[in-house]
Amino acid sequence: MELSTNGLEKNNRVRIEDGFWGRFTELVRETVIPYQWEALNDRIPDAEPSYAIRNFRIAAGWEQGEFGGMVFQDSDVAKWLEAVGYSLAAHPDPELERTADEVIELVAAAQHPNGYLNTYFTVKEPGNEWTNLHEAHELYCAGHMIEAAVAYYEATGKRRLLDVVCKFADHIDTVFGREPGKLRGYDGHQEIELALVKLYKATGEQRYLQLAQFFIDERGAEPNFLVEECKQRDGYSHWAKKKLPIPKVEHMAYNQAHKPVREQDVAVGHSVRAMYMYTAMADLARLTKDDGLLEACRRLWDNTTKRQMYITGGIGSTHHGEAFSFDYDLPNDTVYAETCASIGLIFFANRMLQLEAKSEYADVLERALYNNVIGSMSQDGKHYFYVNPLEVWPKASEKNPGRHHVKAVRQKWFGCSCCPPNVARLLSSLNDYIYTASAEQNKIYTHLFIGSEASFELAAGQVALKQQSRLPWEGYVRLELSAVPGAPFSLALRLPSWSCGNAIMKINGAATAYEIIDGYATVNRQWKQGDVVEWEPQLEAQLIAANPEIRANAGKAAIERGPIVYCLEETDNFSPLASLSIRGGSKLTSSFDPDLPGGAVVIEAEGRADERGSWQADIPYRPLSQLQKAEPVKLKAVPYFLWGNRQPGEMAVWIRTCSE
Amino acid sequence: MELSTNGLEKNNRVRIEDGFWGRFTELVRETVIPYQWEALNDRIPDAEPSYAIRNFRIAAGWEQGEFGGMVFQDSDVAKWLEAVGYSLAAHPDPELERTADEVIELVAAAQHPNGYLNTYFTVKEPGNEWTNLHEAHELYCAGHMIEAAVAYYEATGKRRLLDVVCKFADHIDTVFGREPGKLRGYDGHQEIELALVKLYKATGEQRYLQLAQFFIDERGAEPNFLVEECKQRDGYSHWAKKKLPIPKVEHMAYNQAHKPVREQDVAVGHSVRAMYMYTAMADLARLTKDDGLLEACRRLWDNTTKRQMYITGGIGSTHHGEAFSFDYDLPNDTVYAETCASIGLIFFANRMLQLEAKSEYADVLERALYNNVIGSMSQDGKHYFYVNPLEVWPKASEKNPGRHHVKAVRQKWFGCSCCPPNVARLLSSLNDYIYTASAEQNKIYTHLFIGSEASFELAAGQVALKQQSRLPWEGYVRLELSAVPGAPFSLALRLPSWSCGNAIMKINGAATAYEIIDGYATVNRQWKQGDVVEWEPQLEAQLIAANPEIRANAGKAAIERGPIVYCLEETDNFSPLASLSIRGGSKLTSSFDPDLPGGAVVIEAEGRADERGSWQADIPYRPLSQLQKAEPVKLKAVPYFLWGNRQPGEMAVWIRTCSE
Ligand SMILES: [Zn+2]
Ligand SMILES: [Zn+2]
Repeated sequence: MELSTNGLEKNNRVRIEDGFWGRFTELVRETVIPYQWEALNDRIPDAEPSYAIRNFRIAAGWEQGEFGGMVFQDSDVAKWLEAVGYSLAAHPDPELERTADEVIELVAAAQHPNGYLNTYFTVKEPGNEWTNLHEAHELYCAGHMIEAAVAYYEATGKRRLLDVVCKFADHIDTVFGREPGKLRGYDGHQEIELALVKLYKATGEQRYLQLAQFFIDERGAEPNFLVEECKQRDGYSHWAKKKLPIPKVEHMAYNQAHKPVREQDVAVGHSVRAMYMYTAMADLARLTKDDGLLEACRRLWDNTTKRQMYITGGIGSTHHGEAFSFDYDLPNDTVYAETCASIGLIFFANRMLQLEAKSEYADVLERALYNNVIGSMSQDGKHYFYVNPLEVWPKASEKNPGRHHVKAVRQKWFGCSCCPPNVARLLSSLNDYIYTASAEQNKIYTHLFIGSEASFELAAGQVALKQQSRLPWEGYVRLELSAVPGAPFSLALRLPSWSCGNAIMKINGAATAYEIIDGYATVNRQWKQGDVVEWEPQLEAQLIAANPEIRANAGKAAIERGPIVYCLEETDNFSPLASLSIRGGSKLTSSFDPDLPGGAVVIEAEGRADERGSWQADIPYRPLSQLQKAEPVKLKAVPYFLWGNRQPGEMAVWIRTCSE
Repeated sequence: MELSTNGLEKNNRVRIEDGFWGRFTELVRETVIPYQWEALNDRIPDAEPSYAIRNFRIAAGWEQGEFGGMVFQDSDVAKWLEAVGYSLAAHPDPELERTADEVIELVAAAQHPNGYLNTYFTVKEPGNEWTNLHEAHELYCAGHMIEAAVAYYEATGKRRLLDVVCKFADHIDTVFGREPGKLRGYDGHQEIELALVKLYKATGEQRYLQLAQFFIDERGAEPNFLVEECKQRDGYSHWAKKKLPIPKVEHMAYNQAHKPVREQDVAVGHSVRAMYMYTAMADLARLTKDDGLLEACRRLWDNTTKRQMYITGGIGSTHHGEAFSFDYDLPNDTVYAETCASIGLIFFANRMLQLEAKSEYADVLERALYNNVIGSMSQDGKHYFYVNPLEVWPKASEKNPGRHHVKAVRQKWFGCSCCPPNVARLLSSLNDYIYTASAEQNKIYTHLFIGSEASFELAAGQVALKQQSRLPWEGYVRLELSAVPGAPFSLALRLPSWSCGNAIMKINGAATAYEIIDGYATVNRQWKQGDVVEWEPQLEAQLIAANPEIRANAGKAAIERGPIVYCLEETDNFSPLASLSIRGGSKLTSSFDPDLPGGAVVIEAEGRADERGSWQADIPYRPLSQLQKAEPVKLKAVPYFLWGNRQPGEMAVWIRTCSE
């Protein structure tokens, strides 16, 4: 049934070895995963207990006690296991594997004989299973456990957890469906859909794919399942702990269930839910060759990335419901741009690349990854942003209640549990996002420029290559072919949007012409072992303007250099940052600063500082004509992902431009 | 005990006759007061019932039923009676007076034999009187009824309501105080304090002044009354209808009760509460010659008006708690700037002027009046803004939950009851804000340039004058003295801040030198009957810059012309307004546009429109270098107070400046 062979199949292998990314994956392996394990076991001093492992022990009957934490607490254990799986695949660690095996036994022990698995309903509300799909995250937690099982199975070959989740999925398949007596419903928080696709790919079991498709097809159909379910509960709300008015169908936009998914054309509602759903839709569009779904994916992609995305790859501009608001509404200061939402956007982009290799998907994937996502983590791996602002005034974050959600300093990562494990599982599986390959077309796409060793099974035969990359600081990539088949195949290298179409390709040292197909420089030939392809996309700092409809950025510019978005920090400049502007025609001088965490290229630019000397603190307003001219100043910008790693202070991505 | 004779005493009379203000006072008399009467009686179709009159009928035993509306619903009847009082003073109306007399009989009938008067506690919680000062607004409602009684007494000479409130105040005096058995407390919403000062002035009864002083002195003292009271209720909250955690003393900043008022130096908390308190503090500082209070008033004035005030005279920048946030935090889009808060600021300014005639107080009073306050009312008198934004994007108001409180169109005034009656009572008593006089110093101050006939009792004797004014459209004022005493006296005319210190005075047609004392052009001489003083403050459109600490306005300018702040509206320009900028050195061309409601001066300026033609809707970001130059455009600005009276659309007070 799988009609395209884009995407990395089981016989393809990628292993990252990269100067820039090595630091992050090491952080995840050495700090984040062990730290999260302590958190799951309630062993972090001064932190809210997680209860997550304890809940499983109680559900398994190994311990007495009350359920603790949120209704979706199980998913933290699942995300941890998933990250462990990816980490073990790249970096075997017998002790970690032993710990994971023990956790898996615990999870198995908590499973009901019929396959059902959820510690909240086992411990706290037995008998109420599947009565509050709208709020209770049962299928969401199932989905995360499935993702964990697939990752762990693919890393270790061990089927124990895979068998557990298959039994659970089989049980779910008996509960949900169009047959009489089954629930014709779906979860309030999408996740099971993409997980079932993974389970289908890992096991080859068609029923899992069909179940994913069922959930996607039912979503938003009339009569609205979530509304009807709410009536069944007489309006009782898990979160409010009381009866609430029955919501209307349009309120289900928060859950992207206000209309059938094929009719949706604008990204609405909770942004993480939206991204997980779009990801599954793209999976299904590919695997079932569903043109209606493909068209919906393209429309939702366009709306999300072209009208509702920050330059950092952040999405979901309002903290009210962690949600999309509407086209071009991208305030920099009251922003949400949750880390998880950008991770979801990366999933979506990845699936769109598997559907159709167009460089715009990879451009967005790269943007979200190098800016919003890695910026969310502190350079010690123990502090995180959930909200990723493009403009911060620390006093306002503290004293203006409308900005309390925008933190000026990263928080201990275990305070709330969604984003940090999500970052961990993304970064430890980053190898899955670099390439896709089409076996029949004998074509290997390089989407991301990340040093790695990779091997691919093409129709023509086996290819092995080694990528070396100086990204993000230099526009230099080198691919060396260590194994090639006897027949020709194509290498397709992404021409990044930031290169403005300028890139040089050399093969074995000689400049080579290439064809651009859908944004990829493509060379088809009979390759020889030892062939070296050098790829030099132009990587220059440049000022970027925003569409005039994005009112928040009117009269402003951002600095980009390659995939990296820059920002001004108070510590390198001064306060108020708002009194600075950048000359529209400024030279942008790049230099490597080894003192920044990990070392990074900083950018200096010519700016102007509004005259402040003649103002007194107690004059709020006075004639413009009394002001002196703005003074020339040197502006210093640092990569956005590094902001907030030194002294706390103001930060701004978008800078006013001036002409003189 | 009254140590300064600044302020209008009973023997001084002012009657407004003014082209500009006549429209507003007529609206109030002919539309707002009758309309509000219908609302109080639940006779407005499609509107939430007010229940306010009905509550009094039930409390009086004239009718059976349940209490309806908010705990402070009585204050709506009081504010209406107060406005009626002012209106009758200026414009006798026997039928209206008869209606008011009937209402007063009803109020009297609802009073308990011991003087207590509050329909909520009479009807709904008898026995719980004075147990929740923090939330239940009992003294707040008392204060409004006292203000009504004083206004009605002064207008009509009728003592009926005055006697009722005196009896109530006497009762309050037996409940509150430092003596054993009395409550050493104060209200969660200040209002009684300024009302008791008015009652003291109307009756000469010292106890009322002392009671006001008691409330002010106790506020914020340790142990904190509001916190202790909450403990007595075991945390029970009227609003939450359940027990809540006992608040901390610092939470009482919302009620300005977190520390003694004399120690407060920053405006915090709910802005209307703050203004009413500062007003009473200034009253008491004057009447009791309390230097500590005077110093506190000056500090709080400075903080409020120099660091936390919008250019429109709006205060209270966050809708969370309708409150102040912190110095220089004045976002134009997520703004609150409640109408009532600016009215409170006008009260405060008025009392500061009575304390010490410095023009800065009148400058702020005028700013709040001509912009925030009258801008809150539609030109039909039936629609109101509670929130007065300086920047509006209607779609964001509709679709971004963080801006739902910012309405793009005025709402039917009876939907919520605080602001519209407050506007009515201010506009119908505007005559009290134009002048102050010092009898001993034989000095008459003109603070506002509003056409009026006035008479004053000075030590030197009786003065009568007629002011004619072409404000706000022209800088021309004419004072003619129709009665003068035999001895010299001083006329002090405010030199408005917007004149930049340039003003010509002519006496009987001849230019005359004048002395500037605290911002007032002062001439002391032996005046003759028929003397004419012409006063011509320079009134030119100018661009105004904001203090660089106000980050929201960085790189922007506002247009002012005399007391009027201007704004751009989409209907005169285009969308997005944010793509427009104004040339820093632009000529500002003023012309009278009779087609605007009431006729108004509009301003045209040279601007630039960012290039939009080469953008496609689906390109969110691209290199600045690809943009074409901004095109010259003509900008058209209209008075802020008129915005939203034509087609709905975007609006902006602060406009980006450009240099070329
Ligand atoms: Zn998250
Ligand atoms: Zn109000």
